[in-house]
Amino acid sequence: MEFTAIQIAALLNGTIEGDPDIKVSTLSKIDESLPDSLTFLTNPKYNSYIYSTKASIVLVNQDFIVTQAIGATLIRVENAYASFARLLEMFSKSKNDQIGISAKASISSSATLGTGVSVGDFTYISDRVSIGDNVHIHPQVYIGPHVTIDENTLIYPGVKIYSDCIIGKNCILHSGVVIGSDGFGFAPQPDNNYQKIPQLGNVVLEENVEVGSNTTIDRATLGSTIIHQGVKLDNLIQVAHNVEIGENTVIAAQTGISGSTRIGKNCMIGGQVGIVGHIIIADNVKIGAGSGVERSILQEGAAMLGAPAIEAGKARRNFIHWRKLDEIVRKVYTIEKQVNKSHE
Amino acid sequence: MEFTAIQIAALLNGTIEGDPDIKVSTLSKIDESLPDSLTFLTNPKYNSYIYSTKASIVLVNQDFIVTQAIGATLIRVENAYASFARLLEMFSKSKNDQIGISAKASISSSATLGTGVSVGDFTYISDRVSIGDNVHIHPQVYIGPHVTIDENTLIYPGVKIYSDCIIGKNCILHSGVVIGSDGFGFAPQPDNNYQKIPQLGNVVLEENVEVGSNTTIDRATLGSTIIHQGVKLDNLIQVAHNVEIGENTVIAAQTGISGSTRIGKNCMIGGQVGIVGHIIIADNVKIGAGSGVERSILQEGAAMLGAPAIEAGKARRNFIHWRKLDEIVRKVYTIEKQVNKSHE
Amino acid sequence: MEFTAIQIAALLNGTIEGDPDIKVSTLSKIDESLPDSLTFLTNPKYNSYIYSTKASIVLVNQDFIVTQAIGATLIRVENAYASFARLLEMFSKSKNDQIGISAKASISSSATLGTGVSVGDFTYISDRVSIGDNVHIHPQVYIGPHVTIDENTLIYPGVKIYSDCIIGKNCILHSGVVIGSDGFGFAPQPDNNYQKIPQLGNVVLEENVEVGSNTTIDRATLGSTIIHQGVKLDNLIQVAHNVEIGENTVIAAQTGISGSTRIGKNCMIGGQVGIVGHIIIADNVKIGAGSGVERSILQEGAAMLGAPAIEAGKARRNFIHWRKLDEIVRKVYTIEKQVNKSHE
Repeated sequence: MEFTAIQIAALLNGTIEGDPDIKVSTLSKIDESLPDSLTFLTNPKYNSYIYSTKASIVLVNQDFIVTQAIGATLIRVENAYASFARLLEMFSKSKNDQIGISAKASISSSATLGTGVSVGDFTYISDRVSIGDNVHIHPQVYIGPHVTIDENTLIYPGVKIYSDCIIGKNCILHSGVVIGSDGFGFAPQPDNNYQKIPQLGNVVLEENVEVGSNTTIDRATLGSTIIHQGVKLDNLIQVAHNVEIGENTVIAAQTGISGSTRIGKNCMIGGQVGIVGHIIIADNVKIGAGSGVERSILQEGAAMLGAPAIEAGKARRNFIHWRKLDEIVRKVYTIEKQVNKSHE
Repeated sequence: MEFTAIQIAALLNGTIEGDPDIKVSTLSKIDESLPDSLTFLTNPKYNSYIYSTKASIVLVNQDFIVTQAIGATLIRVENAYASFARLLEMFSKSKNDQIGISAKASISSSATLGTGVSVGDFTYISDRVSIGDNVHIHPQVYIGPHVTIDENTLIYPGVKIYSDCIIGKNCILHSGVVIGSDGFGFAPQPDNNYQKIPQLGNVVLEENVEVGSNTTIDRATLGSTIIHQGVKLDNLIQVAHNVEIGENTVIAAQTGISGSTRIGKNCMIGGQVGIVGHIIIADNVKIGAGSGVERSILQEGAAMLGAPAIEAGKARRNFIHWRKLDEIVRKVYTIEKQVNKSHE
Repeated sequence: MEFTAIQIAALLNGTIEGDPDIKVSTLSKIDESLPDSLTFLTNPKYNSYIYSTKASIVLVNQDFIVTQAIGATLIRVENAYASFARLLEMFSKSKNDQIGISAKASISSSATLGTGVSVGDFTYISDRVSIGDNVHIHPQVYIGPHVTIDENTLIYPGVKIYSDCIIGKNCILHSGVVIGSDGFGFAPQPDNNYQKIPQLGNVVLEENVEVGSNTTIDRATLGSTIIHQGVKLDNLIQVAHNVEIGENTVIAAQTGISGSTRIGKNCMIGGQVGIVGHIIIADNVKIGAGSGVERSILQEGAAMLGAPAIEAGKARRNFIHWRKLDEIVRKVYTIEKQVNKSHE
């Protein structure tokens, strides 16, 4: 999407100083501006940047005073910051314009699509799939048999959704996400081989869930792996079979949650956390980055840290001890010698 | 796949109480049943669920006594649990019905395909690829030049296999798996740049290997990265160049194995384990979740835990000390004061 | 690519002993040779392997003496090792022969392509994309709107690049890489929901960057996530929004870097390292595998290790203490008893 200074000034009720026909295709910050971008200036601390910026258009407040020659086109508005925020929102939406149903997609005749749906090239939609209104599916996506996707959901290129999974409204799935792959379940045999345990459940994402790129969510053995409404998952996270994550819980990148664990609502879980299987995490729990959770956390609102995870304040004190552990251990040896000597 | 109560009763030699024409398309547990699903009841503890279940069909033993109004259709069988296990197996297989060779796939004229092979839409099969009988390749898969895939192997959507790799019989590769990408090898130059070391080996998967979604297995610099028969890898695992993993070893999600390390047979490795390069892990070794293995483990059957990994029993005692480390350190300071005082 | 003994002997100025028409399609090591491969022998320690090797051709020095029956064809050359290195280089290049623009790709009419560009089947190139000379794009790649890719860059199957990102010259992106997905930014609301913060920046990769398979690099909120020239990233790495990585820094697999952190030049970062957000790492810093970096490292050339990361020598001493922590703690309890007794 490209916009001219005239279009933007009209939208923001601003006045142009410079080239009214200049075009921008993105937004940027004043101190790291890209060519063809629009930026804004409100903080006087950054005034000097406006004379050297590569941005094509700068939004400024009505009272901004130009003191040097300036390359960029200015648009004066009532409130440059609020106007910029409005453009942020607008640009964000414009990135996902509806593009219709590609003739280069494969769509089963038994699939049902709502109105305003987009399907990109080389996307594969299997039998008995049901897709709600205004769902936007990018190129190279795979939607397995009997999958349901509710309205307004956005699916980026290359997402793979296995059979029977259910995706709620207003979800966002980033590239490389895999939903519904088999849980890791094998029965050991007397000859040391493993027999695969069929994984016949599914994955359910409720509404307003966002899943970061290359994150994997395995289907349940039976029943459902459930991600409740409002959950936000970062990139490269592993969610094992039969896990349940409570509403509005946020989890940072590379965290792994083992099978059948249930996580409460409104939790905040840092990056690279490991959580063992078959435990319960209460609501409003905070788990610091890099922690290893090996038992249930039943106290609501607990803050945990470390591997194994303990109460966060305690863990922070332990980290201080860790930083001088060598000194502490030497102390122990010294005391031991003194004590043994005085006991001689 | 859908089945009616009549079909299922006929298969299991059961008797129907309810709607003989009702259809189910999946299986579920009695306490988390999905509509259109079939479940079973054998444990009397769960009896109450049968009156509220959303499942369309419930398998029950001959002697089950109905005590309330019931919405679901019942099928009475000799052994409800064994019958359900049989359906599990059957449903599992039905998910991967042969679908033939898609006209929307790209298949090199120099590739050879066995009988009963399926190739999905938008899949790319390169020159000199050899595919055995009954291999099932989903949509959007990439098979590089001179790759060999042996019979009955199942490849899910979006798998990428680089040139020259060899995949054995009865393997399962989940979505997003990358096999044969370049090993991470660079030679430092005097000017701080790195020169890429060509990675010309391949990856060999023997038979009955399963690889979880978004796991990556790099090709050897020369020779082969080898995953022996029966190995099961979970999601998001990193296997570096020239690694060898012994038969029937199972590895949980997000574990990483550095270059040239050799892992024995029948090992069990937890999630988020890190293993350094150029070491050896003996057969039957168990490594707990989150461990960091920095040296060879030469004792067969050893159980290891922690970062750095030590004997597991010792690590568990250390974890107890970690939980009260602050108390222990305070003790040291107190004793130090006492000893210094008594020495004054 | 296949080569005959005649072609190879001509190239290396060697002489053939055996079948001049035998073909090879890859290279291998003498002790793990593949059929249809070429290997070399210079170390007399490995002499016995030449009589049992499965390789079709073996390069040997002029003075090599055959003492038994031999299956492989020999090519005698001046310096077998140097000749092999030359073939390594040549084979490596031949793997990425130009193949032209596929008629099965989708290429926007507003995209511009340089000369010598290859585009594979089922690849999608969006509006206003600009691709430099000799860029090689494999099948099933997605290039979003307004992306720029500079000359000689190599993009493996299934890579996804979101809108507005900029990829430099001579880069290599492996399968499953995601460039430019949304940064993980959400504003908490009074009702515990999160509102998405639009991510409108981009990702910039400078020249000579290599990115391993399934690694994810998120776009900046505003401005750019920047990977400077010569950076090498291994597999399954997470680079969050607004991160900057200095030139010639190398990072091993499964490491995660949180938002807005700036890493210096020529750093070496091990696998499974976690680095928190909004910190600075100086130039030439080394961070050991599995470390957790929770504060800035401002000293150039520092070597750090552990979680939390401390000076590496100190951390190694701490690891020794960890290995006998139980013994040390028992010592503390024993001393405590002794001291308390002597104070009675």
